[in-house]
Amino acid sequence: MKELEQAAGRLITIGDELLLGDIPDGNAHHIALELRSGGFRLNGMVTVGDDEEAIAKAFQDVSSSGDRFVIVTGGLGPTADDRTTDAAAKAFGLPLVQNAEYEQWLRDWVDGRGCAWSERTARMARLPEGAAKLTGEEPMAGFMMERQGVPWYFLPGVPHEMRELLASHVIPDLKRRFPSSVVYLKRILRVQGVAESLIGSRLEELERKVPDVRISYLPQPNENWVGIFVAANSREEAENRAAEIEKEVVALLGYGCVSGRDDENLETTVGGRLRRKGWKLVVAESCTGGLLARRITSVAGASDYFDRGFITYSNGAKMDLLGVEGEVLLAHGAVSFPVAEAMARGARTRSRADAALAITGIAGPSGGTPEKPVGTVFIACATSEGVTVEKHLFAGPRERIQESSAHAALALLWRTLH
Amino acid sequence: MKELEQAAGRLITIGDELLLGDIPDGNAHHIALELRSGGFRLNGMVTVGDDEEAIAKAFQDVSSSGDRFVIVTGGLGPTADDRTTDAAAKAFGLPLVQNAEYEQWLRDWVDGRGCAWSERTARMARLPEGAAKLTGEEPMAGFMMERQGVPWYFLPGVPHEMRELLASHVIPDLKRRFPSSVVYLKRILRVQGVAESLIGSRLEELERKVPDVRISYLPQPNENWVGIFVAANSREEAENRAAEIEKEVVALLGYGCVSGRDDENLETTVGGRLRRKGWKLVVAESCTGGLLARRITSVAGASDYFDRGFITYSNGAKMDLLGVEGEVLLAHGAVSFPVAEAMARGARTRSRADAALAITGIAGPSGGTPEKPVGTVFIACATSEGVTVEKHLFAGPRERIQESSAHAALALLWRTLH
Repeated sequence: MKELEQAAGRLITIGDELLLGDIPDGNAHHIALELRSGGFRLNGMVTVGDDEEAIAKAFQDVSSSGDRFVIVTGGLGPTADDRTTDAAAKAFGLPLVQNAEYEQWLRDWVDGRGCAWSERTARMARLPEGAAKLTGEEPMAGFMMERQGVPWYFLPGVPHEMRELLASHVIPDLKRRFPSSVVYLKRILRVQGVAESLIGSRLEELERKVPDVRISYLPQPNENWVGIFVAANSREEAENRAAEIEKEVVALLGYGCVSGRDDENLETTVGGRLRRKGWKLVVAESCTGGLLARRITSVAGASDYFDRGFITYSNGAKMDLLGVEGEVLLAHGAVSFPVAEAMARGARTRSRADAALAITGIAGPSGGTPEKPVGTVFIACATSEGVTVEKHLFAGPRERIQESSAHAALALLWRTLH
Repeated sequence: MKELEQAAGRLITIGDELLLGDIPDGNAHHIALELRSGGFRLNGMVTVGDDEEAIAKAFQDVSSSGDRFVIVTGGLGPTADDRTTDAAAKAFGLPLVQNAEYEQWLRDWVDGRGCAWSERTARMARLPEGAAKLTGEEPMAGFMMERQGVPWYFLPGVPHEMRELLASHVIPDLKRRFPSSVVYLKRILRVQGVAESLIGSRLEELERKVPDVRISYLPQPNENWVGIFVAANSREEAENRAAEIEKEVVALLGYGCVSGRDDENLETTVGGRLRRKGWKLVVAESCTGGLLARRITSVAGASDYFDRGFITYSNGAKMDLLGVEGEVLLAHGAVSFPVAEAMARGARTRSRADAALAITGIAGPSGGTPEKPVGTVFIACATSEGVTVEKHLFAGPRERIQESSAHAALALLWRTLH
């Protein structure tokens, strides 16, 4: 992948709450994404707690890491556990000084709102010597300084403050420092029914052939994603290059394995096909208990092709709502080929839909038998041309089995609509 | 809060997708939380990309950091961008060897499923010399090794695989290695219908009164969590202390605001109450399209009280399946008090359930009007005592509105079952 001119830096996030698992590090994700959109990248990230020595050590380590820029978030607030400013002064051997101009602005701001002045507020104007204050709409901590030509940006950990300073100061300053004409493009291809290892071996040679493109494997719970990352000198060049690679990837994986790209998940793709055919879909769910319908109706505009669904958890419900015969349930059990078939047929005829999907299975944790262990799931798709029934054996806990079942039903419909 | 004897380690997460902002680092959050629940803590976290040298450098840096244990996730898969195993071998100067026993297990597993063997699959059995394979239910990468007495656990980045190995191997091994007489107890209280700021002000004084306990606020999408973290010298002492604090928190928040603790989500709590009453529940969903039924049936054993559900997306479905009258739909629109009420009544009488929940609303993004903007949702609960209907106006994108609606329906049922 072209990395010319792409300046790479490091992110240091600070806070006991991150190490204790109180909250996921949403700031890190946001900063990574914004940097990438701006044409910059991260060499790595470091997280430490609210401990002055640990923070100072992280600053020293990163100082010698060859990064072109450093972003620090967290630990700048007014409370006792905010140690970042002190740690920076210590790590870089600088005294702390009060920024008189910003303190005055703070005093005016507090006065203007009829609030009481507090020495804690004044701490927001306390900076290592030589640092420049980063200011936002409201009072907030934040400053930047240069160390051996490398810019260090210190941002608060409060998400909306961090986001404001990142957008208003950091990204623009990085763009001034590292001007670049390089355009970055990411494309995700969603692959159905091909194992990650098989994808890897099919694309291995292509990967070697295109060192200017980064192909990455992002396994998801029920499908696999192939990421194509292109860097080019213009939007058009990037689009063309991504399209070329996409074509090659699709050919190597086999036509009919890639269901969509980027945000086009299976429910969106299936919905588009139903809409183009002018078909209506109905579902009948037992062990997934509404999950399949929920995925279908998560798509805006699903009412164009989705009319109704039957959640037939009990045998009584399967008989009442879908017309499954009691003898079939008795002879084969609710989790069986004939019942899945009868559910799909019944849902279709009782709704006048064009296609019906039915799921019956054992999601567990109990209810399994030696012949039909937990994870045994039958999926049926009925159209005017007949019914296809598949048997699956899914692994994992209840929720995984339910999710795999709903996904497999969508994949069956997707292939049926080809 | 007591921290004596608490073993502290470091987490290294690996993957370009983390540095590029493709995905937030949910693994780091999960691991931090699980370690804390187990009585361990993190000194820090490091993230690097899929670059062998960068990974090896991170391993070397961490080797000399004085951590008592190291957990590594990511980069263990079968594809070319998975560099962690090679980097570990390089950093520690060890050859890579094939674990014959695990390779045989893999071959048997693949054979048993009628799949084709691939050399890439075999890579899961490739370990640095002296490392022990960590095995899960399904084939997965993962191993552990000791360096100067410090255990290093290498886990896959695929979340459900990582979680399985963390729970089955890492936490138990850490507990064996670092037995501690300090018992840590975490309790989460799930609070319904009270804003975070209000919770904070109601608990402020309690927080100051109990410095030995950490009370934290963990806002969730549709409810708020209050975390109570206790460290004590015995399980009994910890349980007693947590119970005392829980009692105080419940009293301060108001009885009837805390729906459950720890894993007792609203669907579990509601399910328990239905089971105790011997009641059956039926649902009729329009704008949530199966999400409510999906939440109810995510609980194992839901068949004890959940019999069936109607997903009536179209007006025709509301008439056919629930007996909602056409004139009511015409006069008031599908999103209205009378239709929500008729849906709940119809679902109840057409199923002979004891309680029926119905939802009709505008999830958007289109379909809103000045009188009924996107986010307008009516929720009804019918029992033998009558029907309660609530009107809500939810904010956010489609999915958030659907989730808020399903949650509000469960909350209404929860209050009804009091």
